[in-house]
Amino acid sequence: MAVGNVSVPGSVAALGEFGLVTAITGRLQTGEGVLLGPGDDAAVVAAADARVVATTDVLVEDRHFRRTWVSAADVGHRAAAQNMADVAAMGARTTALLVGVVLPGDLPVQWALDLASGLSEEAELCGASVVGGDVTSGDKIVIAVTALGDLCGRAPVTRAGAAPGDVVAVCGRLGWSEAGRAVLSRGFRSPRVLVAAYQRPQPPYDAGPEGASLGATAMIDVSDGLLQDLGHVATASGVHIDIDTAVLEVGQPLLDLGAALGLNPVEFVLTGGEDHALVACFPPSVELRERWRVIGRVAAAAGEGAVTVDGAAWDGPRGWDHFA
Amino acid sequence: MAVGNVSVPGSVAALGEFGLVTAITGRLQTGEGVLLGPGDDAAVVAAADARVVATTDVLVEDRHFRRTWVSAADVGHRAAAQNMADVAAMGARTTALLVGVVLPGDLPVQWALDLASGLSEEAELCGASVVGGDVTSGDKIVIAVTALGDLCGRAPVTRAGAAPGDVVAVCGRLGWSEAGRAVLSRGFRSPRVLVAAYQRPQPPYDAGPEGASLGATAMIDVSDGLLQDLGHVATASGVHIDIDTAVLEVGQPLLDLGAALGLNPVEFVLTGGEDHALVACFPPSVELRERWRVIGRVAAAAGEGAVTVDGAAWDGPRGWDHFA
Repeated sequence: MAVGNVSVPGSVAALGEFGLVTAITGRLQTGEGVLLGPGDDAAVVAAADARVVATTDVLVEDRHFRRTWVSAADVGHRAAAQNMADVAAMGARTTALLVGVVLPGDLPVQWALDLASGLSEEAELCGASVVGGDVTSGDKIVIAVTALGDLCGRAPVTRAGAAPGDVVAVCGRLGWSEAGRAVLSRGFRSPRVLVAAYQRPQPPYDAGPEGASLGATAMIDVSDGLLQDLGHVATASGVHIDIDTAVLEVGQPLLDLGAALGLNPVEFVLTGGEDHALVACFPPSVELRERWRVIGRVAAAAGEGAVTVDGAAWDGPRGWDHFA
Repeated sequence: MAVGNVSVPGSVAALGEFGLVTAITGRLQTGEGVLLGPGDDAAVVAAADARVVATTDVLVEDRHFRRTWVSAADVGHRAAAQNMADVAAMGARTTALLVGVVLPGDLPVQWALDLASGLSEEAELCGASVVGGDVTSGDKIVIAVTALGDLCGRAPVTRAGAAPGDVVAVCGRLGWSEAGRAVLSRGFRSPRVLVAAYQRPQPPYDAGPEGASLGATAMIDVSDGLLQDLGHVATASGVHIDIDTAVLEVGQPLLDLGAALGLNPVEFVLTGGEDHALVACFPPSVELRERWRVIGRVAAAAGEGAVTVDGAAWDGPRGWDHFA
């Protein structure tokens, strides 16, 4: 059967497991560092510095995405991005993805192929490849991605190293994805720039290794909301973090949307997840490139590690709970 | 709240994502080679020979297991085993597992903790650890495991190296798991030895590195059935493989069950998956330890690579299709 980028008719059940795997594999590019690619019991990936960074995240249809809001390729980009951002947040570069998918039998083959293309294209942004996977059937689409990464000799940047006196800086957009979700959930398809931010987040992957090289003491990607994710840093590091909203970047589309919907645009920035910006703590002497914006300070914890906003407790929502 | 091995009441939804992750992490042992364990954006695992073996497999409730047939701990053991057997089939030792799980909100917390214990206990059989994961909610349980492995300086054993003249040898049980499934599907709970083989397969993990050291030219784990999995070797290697049923080991429980149900017990051995035995091709001069049983020969392919049984085409079922 035709693969490559030719349109493929029929359902995944009609094609069968092995036909589907063959068709999907035809969409994948394997690059440098892949010593053995898809098609065997396991892949073999180079791990030049004798360590491998590894993380996994799961997307569930109607929980993390809706097929009416995002294309199959978008889902692939999103699934890859959220894992590759986790690798970046350790200060590493993603080298390989493995993808386990559950697909309903009546799903069009084309959907599965577009998913694979999206995963592969996002991986290429880091010079990474999809090296393995598994497909099986089920009622709802589930996509479990594992990303592997290379620290290139650097120490991993954990959540636990922030120290009083550090500055808190962010690289990447905050709140745009959540604003896009708010647009889609109201039945609109524009502003396009916000919808696109939701459909295909753009994590600043190379800022992860850069932050590590600049001496980041702690780093995390903003997947569940700035306050919630900085809360993890505060807890792990045993520190207090205060955010200064006066220096937060609130993009014009967020200001416009807030005005249109009667919502506080700063809330998108503080609590919106899924843009996968990187937020890191640095010693106060750090010299950051312009794309890193200092948004707060680390102080000694009074009791448990905590995050405040402009010196006060935040009484709004903090972010996303996957079982809420 | 109480973790460790204390019984935990309530549902996963009531506990919430972060409480659940904390409770699960409390069940996990992290061993040697884990440079950074669960709880950060990603884990860091040693990869001493500068390569990492990686594979992923997905289990879906009511497709790959039923909660009435297997305990949560069994599901953990099975999910770990099928991935660790894939790593072994490359000639490698599993070092780490990552686990993405989808759990219904009303699932008892205890089920999730027992799942984690099963995963961790099976991993320990290889000296491996569960180093990371993700939990989210959905209608049905889905468990996506990724296993990482260490080749310890050896070349990976693929499916593609079998050559005419090689012998085909198997290490581990064949057909027992499928026989156990046949027992359970008829509403019985015994013979216990077959049900137990289904509930907790016992792949001969160390036979993978051993086979590689003995010069295996191709190797695969029997996950979908001997004929189907050897078919992958025949196709990848461009060879013909013939199985000699006279030398196949057909265990007494299989003979007894076949007699009781009026089924051919050899069919369990040829087509039953999920025991995760290892089957490998070796040069004819190889000296194998007793646990490897020679069951067939490799010949030049007449046309496409194919597998025959006692010199003739097999006209029964070949194995498992995940979309059938």
